[in-house]
Amino acid sequence: MPQQQEQQPYTPIKDIGEFGLIGHLRGVLGESEDDSILAGISDDAAVYRIDDERVHVLTTDAMIEGIHFDRTFMPMEHLGFKAISINVSDIVAMNATPRYATVTLGVPQQVPVEALGQLYEGIKQACRAYGMTVVGGDTTAAHQFTISVSVVGEAQEDAIVYRRGAQPGDVLCVTGDLGASFAGLKALVENRERLDEEGEESFQPNLDRFSYVIQRHLAPPAQLKAIRDWAEHDLKPHALIDISDGLASEVNHICEASGVGALVHEAKLPLAQETMDAAQHFGEEVDVYALFGGEDYELLFALPEEELDKLSDLPSDAFFVVGRVTEKDEGVLIEQSSGETVPLRPGGFDHFQPGEANGGLGA
Amino acid sequence: MPQQQEQQPYTPIKDIGEFGLIGHLRGVLGESEDDSILAGISDDAAVYRIDDERVHVLTTDAMIEGIHFDRTFMPMEHLGFKAISINVSDIVAMNATPRYATVTLGVPQQVPVEALGQLYEGIKQACRAYGMTVVGGDTTAAHQFTISVSVVGEAQEDAIVYRRGAQPGDVLCVTGDLGASFAGLKALVENRERLDEEGEESFQPNLDRFSYVIQRHLAPPAQLKAIRDWAEHDLKPHALIDISDGLASEVNHICEASGVGALVHEAKLPLAQETMDAAQHFGEEVDVYALFGGEDYELLFALPEEELDKLSDLPSDAFFVVGRVTEKDEGVLIEQSSGETVPLRPGGFDHFQPGEANGGLGA
Repeated sequence: MPQQQEQQPYTPIKDIGEFGLIGHLRGVLGESEDDSILAGISDDAAVYRIDDERVHVLTTDAMIEGIHFDRTFMPMEHLGFKAISINVSDIVAMNATPRYATVTLGVPQQVPVEALGQLYEGIKQACRAYGMTVVGGDTTAAHQFTISVSVVGEAQEDAIVYRRGAQPGDVLCVTGDLGASFAGLKALVENRERLDEEGEESFQPNLDRFSYVIQRHLAPPAQLKAIRDWAEHDLKPHALIDISDGLASEVNHICEASGVGALVHEAKLPLAQETMDAAQHFGEEVDVYALFGGEDYELLFALPEEELDKLSDLPSDAFFVVGRVTEKDEGVLIEQSSGETVPLRPGGFDHFQPGEANGGLGA
Repeated sequence: MPQQQEQQPYTPIKDIGEFGLIGHLRGVLGESEDDSILAGISDDAAVYRIDDERVHVLTTDAMIEGIHFDRTFMPMEHLGFKAISINVSDIVAMNATPRYATVTLGVPQQVPVEALGQLYEGIKQACRAYGMTVVGGDTTAAHQFTISVSVVGEAQEDAIVYRRGAQPGDVLCVTGDLGASFAGLKALVENRERLDEEGEESFQPNLDRFSYVIQRHLAPPAQLKAIRDWAEHDLKPHALIDISDGLASEVNHICEASGVGALVHEAKLPLAQETMDAAQHFGEEVDVYALFGGEDYELLFALPEEELDKLSDLPSDAFFVVGRVTEKDEGVLIEQSSGETVPLRPGGFDHFQPGEANGGLGA
């Protein structure tokens, strides 16, 4: 049977990319006939009714060694925390509250019990921080260390915010500074490379000056506080998504789902001082980190400008206006710091095309 | 930091085994304070209340290439079907109905889009068979092919059956023949080895005579029909578990959770003719397949003998009485075909100890 398969024509996944593949597999499954399902594969998390008023949301996200993390510089405790965080981020991106998680581990033979204990310490910390519980899982042997988490969240049906609700005239906001996680990854990779070159004894790591961005990479918090603030202030955005693949990618997701355009202002992107310092250290443009870096796990949301008045008592760093929703035929644009306005291509990180820039600032 | 870890004492996972590890990690997490949770890591699936009468159940199970399956003889369509089935089996083992699934894939570079299309055809078939819907997932690159599925099911709270309810005097029953999946695996492995030795041209595979047991290995059905039959006949067992690691292991799980003993009769184990033929072909004891083979995905349940009368109109192969629940101090025993009664050790398959017999028929 394998011999037969090799003779057939085939399409490498990288030819259609991650989002192309997801679309293809959705097509194989066809439309659901279950009318309890309000959102399926199309949003950050699935949404299904549990009664006349309430819904549950369900998401799953995996982290695989060598693809999503490097065990030589990802402490086990951080890995556990991050694996929960990235899933909670998807729940929060529906304006829902996380409740229950399952954790599936694929563990190489040489990993000791103590390392998994540390991993679970991180999972426990995350569960406390987000007020949720690990209710089950599966643990098995594997060649590559793999952690796959599923999280169930809950909300009132009318509180759920999809990607698809943005309206021309809305402002586009983000909940925190961007590009820091990518800057932290760069610092960790440089540190490991110097360690490899110079050896442990002669090498003095100097990670302190990048401690904030490294923390943002290793243990990013999900923005549960933001949606709690909104609920307290009776605010419901028109559209919402979490920033996992870079702002450029997420703006395009919201625009595509909502049938609108957008204009983002590069000068308004919130950046931490350390992120700017890191970009300078590496001789790179910090705006590229902010737009295409990924793994920020902040929220991008669209809402009428006057609604922002409701949040006037929040600290000034609770959110940042980065642009505006426009009509679809105006396209998805970015006004660069130079004053020039160009198309904002999705870009972002596609794990099936490592090392390639796929998208970016268009000319 | 890696250097420090290597100097610390550590415990290889195989020293404590899969169940020891799960217990250890449960200890790290501590007790849950969420009183909506009726069962956590202790049963086939987690159970949480969604209102005053109804619960959801949640389970997750992964299949990893080289550990759980061999892509050279596991067609993609069967892999997709089986990955759903083994999760549905855990839902059914709580006496609940599957509703929603997420599918996480880790895909090596050389796997083409068409292969994933076949995988999803199998997933679609399974979803149709079980009346459920794939609502989300995550697809990423990986070195090892990995499929991790989570399934949400639903039930009335008072319909849920745990492992822990077996009572002395109950009969122990299984829903179908045992050991066939293991026999099928043996036939597939032998076929591949002969293919490797003799080459494709000279070798004539003779898999037809083992087609039933091979099907049981490649695409085992979950026993959703059994629990529907029970509901129609107003039957609720005292205790219930699915047979994923072999009957011996599952009998011990029920006994441990229920605080009881058991006596299983080897002569009563249901065996398919092909399973017996395969065992003879391989020169092995068929009872070992039935007790320790695993991956049967039949159900083991305990109930008062008189309750069986409710099922009298079902076909004679709908279930088989294989033993009886006894007092805890009588232990977990098996009456062998020779007439001798010996302890029935858990055995079953532990993926962290490949190739080792861990447990078995005790002397």
